[in-house]
Amino acid sequence: MSALDRSILDAVPAFAALTGKEIDIVLAQARSLRYPKGTTVFEQGGAADSFFVLLHGHLQVVKLTPAGQQVVIRYVVPGEMFGIAVQIGRQSYPATAQAVMDSLALVWPSSAWPTLVARCPALAESALHIVGTRLDEAHVRVVELATEEVERRVAHALLRLLKQAGRKVDDGIEVAFPITREDVAQMTGTTLHTVSRILSRWEARGLVESERQRIVVRDPHGLFAIAETAKA
Amino acid sequence: MSALDRSILDAVPAFAALTGKEIDIVLAQARSLRYPKGTTVFEQGGAADSFFVLLHGHLQVVKLTPAGQQVVIRYVVPGEMFGIAVQIGRQSYPATAQAVMDSLALVWPSSAWPTLVARCPALAESALHIVGTRLDEAHVRVVELATEEVERRVAHALLRLLKQAGRKVDDGIEVAFPITREDVAQMTGTTLHTVSRILSRWEARGLVESERQRIVVRDPHGLFAIAETAKA
Repeated sequence: MSALDRSILDAVPAFAALTGKEIDIVLAQARSLRYPKGTTVFEQGGAADSFFVLLHGHLQVVKLTPAGQQVVIRYVVPGEMFGIAVQIGRQSYPATAQAVMDSLALVWPSSAWPTLVARCPALAESALHIVGTRLDEAHVRVVELATEEVERRVAHALLRLLKQAGRKVDDGIEVAFPITREDVAQMTGTTLHTVSRILSRWEARGLVESERQRIVVRDPHGLFAIAETAKA
Repeated sequence: MSALDRSILDAVPAFAALTGKEIDIVLAQARSLRYPKGTTVFEQGGAADSFFVLLHGHLQVVKLTPAGQQVVIRYVVPGEMFGIAVQIGRQSYPATAQAVMDSLALVWPSSAWPTLVARCPALAESALHIVGTRLDEAHVRVVELATEEVERRVAHALLRLLKQAGRKVDDGIEVAFPITREDVAQMTGTTLHTVSRILSRWEARGLVESERQRIVVRDPHGLFAIAETAKA
């Protein structure tokens, strides 16, 4: 029996195919770490010495360009494996992960991966499915950035956030973590100015409400209509 | 001994970690198929019943939007494994692959993958590295599309083509397969008109030469300077 209880991994799809005994093997190598809001979990270019499963909280993953521009690659939600660098043969992290709220993660040393896979072969398949899903997501964004007007891209980005981390509130569905207009700009390849203009227009139409660090979608169907309507 | 000779896989990185005996096991399940220029190898949304290794030729992989716009996701060069859908748990192909010149591929039934991985565990790791590399490439494109002016994106796209499939010729390095300005537009999220304007300007400066289906880069360093210089 490991120090961490098996049930901690019940909501982690990456481990769904493992037997109870295999989960014990995996957990025996893990420790849990807290990441207070604003702290960095790993840094772009840093040695990929750990991989992680998020248990609680939310992380933002960003890529920095040499010129210092930031692009938000994705958000990590509870139950997800992340920091998957050693698994794909990388020595360093390709991006930076930061806690956007107080978060808790399980952490494994990357050096444990080969042994874990040898003892639990289902892990390799899980990792493949995770990386494959991320690849699909990345290609969807390539297509959006290559073909869609900015308003549709912003609508798609918000709908994805709702799907990934939407929380029902009185006046609609809110993104369950702090998010700014600048974050949305960095997710959609546009400027803060443009995102502000679009959100203000949508607010006037009753589609969304946004405050400094909060976005509520009041009319998801209206947003969907914008996302899916190609400009003539 | 299988009908196909082991040496056929010498230049295939996906199989580099396999023993000779394992390669025989893998080859025993494969057949080779010719894809004349212009033919479709697999179609977006079609059942992912095969995976492939390209032995000769070049393929273009494109994604079609619901509105009928095309985005070139990547080109497949000899030695690459492609059509990796079953490996990442997909039932259908996420894109369409077409031969841009006469091509030859090894083809495996997707149903053979679980058995092959069970008998040759190194295959799972290979697949992870391949999908991970594609993910890195996709994120690079997301960042380019989100932050770069179109001229830099076109420069980056051409430099990548040279790296992946460049062939030395008298007056520079040419892309080793037929490629049109429209293809470049679909790789960089812009219009044929814009690509034509950029290539004409570069031609006037002696950086490139382009004909209907051919692009030669005369001055890779000059192109690199454009790709890496952020606009002030």
